[in-house]
Amino acid sequence: MCELFAMSSRHPATVRMSLEEFSRHGGLAGPHKDGWGIAYYEEGDVRLIKEPFAASESACLRFVQDHPYRSSAVISHIRRATQGRRSLANTQPFARELGGRMHVFAHNGDLDGARLRNSFPLGGYHPVGETDSEYAFCALLARVARILQDTGQPPPVEQRLALVSEFAAELRALGPANFLYADGDALFAHGHKRTHADGIRPPGLHVLCRSCAADSAAFRAEGLSIAPAATTQEVVLVASVPLTAGEPWEPVADGEVVAARCGRIVARSAL
Amino acid sequence: MCELFAMSSRHPATVRMSLEEFSRHGGLAGPHKDGWGIAYYEEGDVRLIKEPFAASESACLRFVQDHPYRSSAVISHIRRATQGRRSLANTQPFARELGGRMHVFAHNGDLDGARLRNSFPLGGYHPVGETDSEYAFCALLARVARILQDTGQPPPVEQRLALVSEFAAELRALGPANFLYADGDALFAHGHKRTHADGIRPPGLHVLCRSCAADSAAFRAEGLSIAPAATTQEVVLVASVPLTAGEPWEPVADGEVVAARCGRIVARSAL
Repeated sequence: MCELFAMSSRHPATVRMSLEEFSRHGGLAGPHKDGWGIAYYEEGDVRLIKEPFAASESACLRFVQDHPYRSSAVISHIRRATQGRRSLANTQPFARELGGRMHVFAHNGDLDGARLRNSFPLGGYHPVGETDSEYAFCALLARVARILQDTGQPPPVEQRLALVSEFAAELRALGPANFLYADGDALFAHGHKRTHADGIRPPGLHVLCRSCAADSAAFRAEGLSIAPAATTQEVVLVASVPLTAGEPWEPVADGEVVAARCGRIVARSAL
Repeated sequence: MCELFAMSSRHPATVRMSLEEFSRHGGLAGPHKDGWGIAYYEEGDVRLIKEPFAASESACLRFVQDHPYRSSAVISHIRRATQGRRSLANTQPFARELGGRMHVFAHNGDLDGARLRNSFPLGGYHPVGETDSEYAFCALLARVARILQDTGQPPPVEQRLALVSEFAAELRALGPANFLYADGDALFAHGHKRTHADGIRPPGLHVLCRSCAADSAAFRAEGLSIAPAATTQEVVLVASVPLTAGEPWEPVADGEVVAARCGRIVARSAL
């Protein structure tokens, strides 16, 4: 299984500490040697960095130390290949433009590729690589394209949540389908159980809401000193496994989709 | 004016030395302080690295030294903003998927934005930023989409060259229109005169064809030791100004489009 991480915040944050935790808890201790990537939203565009080889401790930590990009929305992925060879095109996250906004997708699971290709039309989007995950992203974009308004503006978040939830339900029928999806406005996290080699199926995603004053140590540690001093930082973190002890990480329910924007959970799908 | 650089090669090359020359000759001595970027093709996907601030000597040289990515097709751009603020979305090159291949575009010039938006339909592609250059790229993709075969395979290079040449001719009517465009198979370079502050209009692009044995010093210097020892490396370089002395750099004629693939010039538009 791959490992997923995402962040939504009220003020741009560096996610440096969260990524170090992600590296330690998620990627480096596990069998995820086939690639890693991170997408940072930056004023509507996306800075996408990925490598089709192991997120080894030195390279990964050096990278996040050397590049403290500030962003209000981040999606990261560490890959253990199940479908598709080890290549840049098969490394997540994936990013595409739709309606003048950048959309980002990362998936943890292993879908039935033949059924996926038979039952999910692609519209105008075509995979560049060979993974089930990129195919699923293209299929999701084809559906999102249909609900864009004539102005190109996205419909209300509740309508997009309903679309993502319906898509997720169909995807679950094809295999493990934890995914993170950002549409340039909101972040959607879909939880599905993960199957381990020993048969145990723990929750596939966990979510944590943090809030702290601008002058707190935690606020400064994430490099948020550019925010107005009197304000409060709010952050939603999503990860395959809880990244910290002593904080109220909550499992995303099996089949649930959580929508976050500007550091707050703004909607949840009905179960 | 911005500065352009591209490379097409028979065997993957690092372009490290060419980029150092590009930095010295093109970007660093000139007023190009608004961003820089580079796109490397890698097995069908594109590694896109860009920054919305100056390609200062230290950062640019450190980057190409630290990241000797090997590629058979590279497009790079150093920006001096004429339209659009300094942001990641307005920094070139631009990369988009079409027909399951990544397409890359970089433009040097300043187009009449109002006429561009009135006379070039976009199809399904929408700019993320505000530049004339990204709008032109979306308009070009809309045309390319129309000539893709049902299989998604691109038509012969001569047909694509004719389309790019026709597009370039229309673009020239709107202002300086030097551009580089790669469609995942071939590289197209369109030459147009550049207007300097003193009124001089030198050629906007120059091209150089290099060929050397696998065991030559020049071959090894570009990091090509992975190629079979008995083979010959062939490289086409394109740049705003000649990057080296003592080599036969040839100006691209005003209005000409040169098509290169695998390190050779394979077609030229009629003038």
